[in-house]
Amino acid sequence: MPAHPLNLALWQTAYAPPEAGTALALERLDTAAAQARAQGADLLLCPEMGLTGYAIGAERVAALAEAPDGPLAQAVASIAQRHRIAIVYGYPERHPQGGKPFNAAQAMGPDHQAIGHYRKTHLFGDMDRAQFSPGDAASQVFTWRGWRLGLLICYDVEFPEAVRGLALQAADAVLVPTANMIGFDEVPALLVPARACENRLFVAYANACGQEGPVHYGGLSTAAGPDGRVLAQAERGETLLQVRMAHAELAAFRPNTYLRDRRTDLHRPPLA
Amino acid sequence: MPAHPLNLALWQTAYAPPEAGTALALERLDTAAAQARAQGADLLLCPEMGLTGYAIGAERVAALAEAPDGPLAQAVASIAQRHRIAIVYGYPERHPQGGKPFNAAQAMGPDHQAIGHYRKTHLFGDMDRAQFSPGDAASQVFTWRGWRLGLLICYDVEFPEAVRGLALQAADAVLVPTANMIGFDEVPALLVPARACENRLFVAYANACGQEGPVHYGGLSTAAGPDGRVLAQAERGETLLQVRMAHAELAAFRPNTYLRDRRTDLHRPPLA
Repeated sequence: MPAHPLNLALWQTAYAPPEAGTALALERLDTAAAQARAQGADLLLCPEMGLTGYAIGAERVAALAEAPDGPLAQAVASIAQRHRIAIVYGYPERHPQGGKPFNAAQAMGPDHQAIGHYRKTHLFGDMDRAQFSPGDAASQVFTWRGWRLGLLICYDVEFPEAVRGLALQAADAVLVPTANMIGFDEVPALLVPARACENRLFVAYANACGQEGPVHYGGLSTAAGPDGRVLAQAERGETLLQVRMAHAELAAFRPNTYLRDRRTDLHRPPLA
Repeated sequence: MPAHPLNLALWQTAYAPPEAGTALALERLDTAAAQARAQGADLLLCPEMGLTGYAIGAERVAALAEAPDGPLAQAVASIAQRHRIAIVYGYPERHPQGGKPFNAAQAMGPDHQAIGHYRKTHLFGDMDRAQFSPGDAASQVFTWRGWRLGLLICYDVEFPEAVRGLALQAADAVLVPTANMIGFDEVPALLVPARACENRLFVAYANACGQEGPVHYGGLSTAAGPDGRVLAQAERGETLLQVRMAHAELAAFRPNTYLRDRRTDLHRPPLA
């Protein structure tokens, strides 16, 4: 059980135009990190592929792909360190064996050190499949400031198995960069709060907004608590959404009867 | 895929007082079945342990327990046949080996024949455990009028694994007798619609209402569609809630991408 609350800022933002490269996105991240820290946030959660854009085509994804300690990672680490805030950001990870990049998320601590990393395992539709290789491992919990945190990306969180796998690792919160399009509002409205409730943990889901080529993102970034209540929800436009994850709310649901009462003799637990 | 819609009536009712035996409950069922059929319903869904009461103590549960073709079953079959309607009802099933009864639900067709049966597998809290043995098998889909139907009972539906197990058997709808108490509104408000959405099927959840000894039931019987939308939801009091499950709504989600895109290499499917 964490001993202190964790203050999150969910950065709901439009993607920078591709002609600006990643410099403009990093500049905006620097501003968002400063604002988030000024508002008391410990951790800033960015959308899926937040620094490069998401619907940018396989060629551009491949060109921007980098190792987990590549130039984007270094830039994010410096921003995190400068503002004394953790940053979870999405980026295209270069495939070590030369395949299509992974759709990855990395948690960068305020000490210029990566603290968590994940490759999206559930690819959504043709665009995701054209641009990315699917991750080959279930998400692994990492600990920061006493909080057991898990990362998922976008479509992943729609699968109860993925969040259950993190709950079985005793996750306190699941952080989800996403690029959820207009027309799929049931994900923030229904599935994100349900995942929090049925696993008795916090879920934070930070979406893009605005337009990227022909693609319209739906905003509605959402944080939900272990009782399924929506703690904060954005509207459609740009915003920095503050949410306090009160550790005491977890205590009301420990021991976690939803984990205890599962019928593992009838329904196999997800690998974790 | 079913070729026709299925019209349901969810019977949200208070339990008959124990001193009335089961005769009063059967009389009320007869009236509800007549009303439901007159309103065009094909199937009437009753609350958990609807004919005997739920919070009645282990002794009374044991005294009222019967085989699946016992006197209550015969009486329900006659009502179903008289009104040309299927009835899903909850009852205490006598344990063949002499243990505590099972908390069971049976689907009785309009031809005086049982068409489906299920023993609750997830027992909720001390009262359930004091009164019942847990079921020893996952729910099995049965087919009626072209619809592939699954039964769950109350707490079962809060577990994503249980509904997933039915979805993997290609269920079109999950029918859930329940006795959900005041204070657990997140089940009808959030989890029932989420189960429908994440499995792309219909879920109907028929609750008790009113008071039974010290126990207050919360009503809010709910039916949700494969897009997660609430199709019908009761308030707190007695009602016969009509819902039309339009088979065409299933077609929009076939093939079921939520089943197709699961990562069974990382998250094991529930046994089914």
